[in-house]
Amino acid sequence: MRDVDIIGIGMFPFGVHKTTPLVEMGVRAAIDAIKDAGVKPSQVNIGFFANMQAANLTKEFTTGQTVMWGAGINKIPVFNIENACTSGASATTLAMMSIASGQYDIALVVGAEKLNVPFIPLLNPSLRDINVLEGNVVINGFAQRAVRHMHEYGTTKEQLAMVDVKNRKHALLNPMAKFFNKPVTIEEVLNAPMMADPLTKLMCCPNSDGAAALVLCAAEISRRFTSKPIHLKASVLVSGIFDEVPDMQTFEEDQRASRIAYETAGLGPEDVSAVECHDAFTICEIMHTENLGFCPIGEGGPFVESGATSLGGKIPVNVSGGLLGKGHPLGATAVSQIVEGVIQLRGEAGARQVEGAKVFLAECMGAELRGDAKTCTVNILTV
Amino acid sequence: MRDVDIIGIGMFPFGVHKTTPLVEMGVRAAIDAIKDAGVKPSQVNIGFFANMQAANLTKEFTTGQTVMWGAGINKIPVFNIENACTSGASATTLAMMSIASGQYDIALVVGAEKLNVPFIPLLNPSLRDINVLEGNVVINGFAQRAVRHMHEYGTTKEQLAMVDVKNRKHALLNPMAKFFNKPVTIEEVLNAPMMADPLTKLMCCPNSDGAAALVLCAAEISRRFTSKPIHLKASVLVSGIFDEVPDMQTFEEDQRASRIAYETAGLGPEDVSAVECHDAFTICEIMHTENLGFCPIGEGGPFVESGATSLGGKIPVNVSGGLLGKGHPLGATAVSQIVEGVIQLRGEAGARQVEGAKVFLAECMGAELRGDAKTCTVNILTV
Repeated sequence: MRDVDIIGIGMFPFGVHKTTPLVEMGVRAAIDAIKDAGVKPSQVNIGFFANMQAANLTKEFTTGQTVMWGAGINKIPVFNIENACTSGASATTLAMMSIASGQYDIALVVGAEKLNVPFIPLLNPSLRDINVLEGNVVINGFAQRAVRHMHEYGTTKEQLAMVDVKNRKHALLNPMAKFFNKPVTIEEVLNAPMMADPLTKLMCCPNSDGAAALVLCAAEISRRFTSKPIHLKASVLVSGIFDEVPDMQTFEEDQRASRIAYETAGLGPEDVSAVECHDAFTICEIMHTENLGFCPIGEGGPFVESGATSLGGKIPVNVSGGLLGKGHPLGATAVSQIVEGVIQLRGEAGARQVEGAKVFLAECMGAELRGDAKTCTVNILTV
Repeated sequence: MRDVDIIGIGMFPFGVHKTTPLVEMGVRAAIDAIKDAGVKPSQVNIGFFANMQAANLTKEFTTGQTVMWGAGINKIPVFNIENACTSGASATTLAMMSIASGQYDIALVVGAEKLNVPFIPLLNPSLRDINVLEGNVVINGFAQRAVRHMHEYGTTKEQLAMVDVKNRKHALLNPMAKFFNKPVTIEEVLNAPMMADPLTKLMCCPNSDGAAALVLCAAEISRRFTSKPIHLKASVLVSGIFDEVPDMQTFEEDQRASRIAYETAGLGPEDVSAVECHDAFTICEIMHTENLGFCPIGEGGPFVESGATSLGGKIPVNVSGGLLGKGHPLGATAVSQIVEGVIQLRGEAGARQVEGAKVFLAECMGAELRGDAKTCTVNILTV
């Protein structure tokens, strides 16, 4: 198995882009990534496109081929990948495998999503699922987890709010985060409309549009294209477990995926400089910081309150703004997390630079319907 | 790169299954495949699920994970793949790569599709595509190809009809083909309602439901599970070309994908014993027999008329019934083609057995909107 580097990144800003088609966002990110990598379109050997809702919302299929065509890439194998919120990381895992196997040298990963369409049907309204009919959908699953976490560990509503305050503050430093343009206070978060107790509207990430892209390259040739290759040390995908009663206050999938990733990379949580994780709801980030090993289980609330996860803290989390601060264009999200890692490890993050960043971890989770984790991904990058 | 074998197959019959959910069809095929392979669910290392329309028609996502759960498979990486009609072959290509790379030993591929749902919106009604608004959709693209083929090479309407007569006859010998239960005559095909001149309704494959599954295994350990491993010698996916005026009377993608596959397998068209190809419309099969190298370009019409592509002929094509005879559950179709190859090479095809079959080729094509080939796959299997 060959080592794999990331040599190019591109993003179409995350925000509300009502008049920009999905394909155009994907093409723009793809072109930026191959330009950044210094490769020609004809040098790309294989392509992976991540998206969740295009078939549902805009009736688009084999969209990856259309995006590659728009970026001037023809003939090569192209795969369209859906794995809920982890679609982009799943595409990255496959791209890494295609290069590590020795079959391909240069892979393009594009994640794109357009949620702000003229008519948005309710997401995930599977007509025959009793859980949906009873309103037991994603947000409720996470609200239940929040209630359980508060009961079990004494996590407070204020701590739940602090995650959003922090990530909204981080997002103001990220030119690719266009959804919001002002910070929020703890009071504003707590007083926002209640969505599913204890989660207020500002404890939930907004539906946004956007795209992100990566160029992966066999490490043995990456210096032909860049003097600063970033090493993709581990790209792990795991699925959830069906037959066991879920433990509401931990994420077993986080623990399992990160254990594999740490072992593969030969690193541990103590080595990580910065983290992007799946903060779809504020409780998620608190739980991820625990289950990825950055603080003990149950102490995620005090951990955010201490400032440890803020820019300048012990282990900055979601300095890009995260899903809460820059929005959650599903297929693009997990790719954008890895893009942020490359920016940080290159030392090109400007005002939001994590000083001396050497190891970066990106976590994503695909939870559906009842908030069960169906998929979980962990990617580890190093300088 | 390691060699890869197919050690297990499963199918849920292709037909109209209005009351059977998509997931159940997938689970049944998956369970049959792992039983046939003699592996336990816990021995499967990685899973790939192929489907095209579930997000659109029944609002189902990360369906592969649900199917794997139903088959008793937890924790492993699972990817949901969409590549139009080639979704199942694309999933097979990735499964082969995952094993060839040395990362995984046993992969499960499941393709499933449910098209007969209570409310079927028009397939592919991309709202902003001028081609769709003008009615220039898949069937018209292939009708234009048929007209061109007739003009250029003298192909007749009767020859277009013969493909359906042949494949419907083949389907009667396949217990997994439940859509039709009687043969048709040339006159019936020609007198069926006109869909897009010269293609009548019986020259078009029907929308059906069904599932198919494969267990792939590293060749070095496949004899632990079966005494009759079938070798997957090549699994090729290519994309179409955007920037060139399409040649209406040939399939460049067929030529390109099969050239790569033949080279990889070290075989040529003269070695092939039996073929399944993407006969979505009868003109397609005629063109595929030419472009895959089984007869000269332009002679596909006389070739079917000669009986060469019938069971018992020189190179039997679509002895399973093909898309015309057994229907076209999109994500399942290309997997079912490979299942047919395994049955034939094992010598287990009963009344439709191709005598002495040693090499099998499966071709599929994902054409969208204007009938342009966006994706094309060729898989070659040997005893």
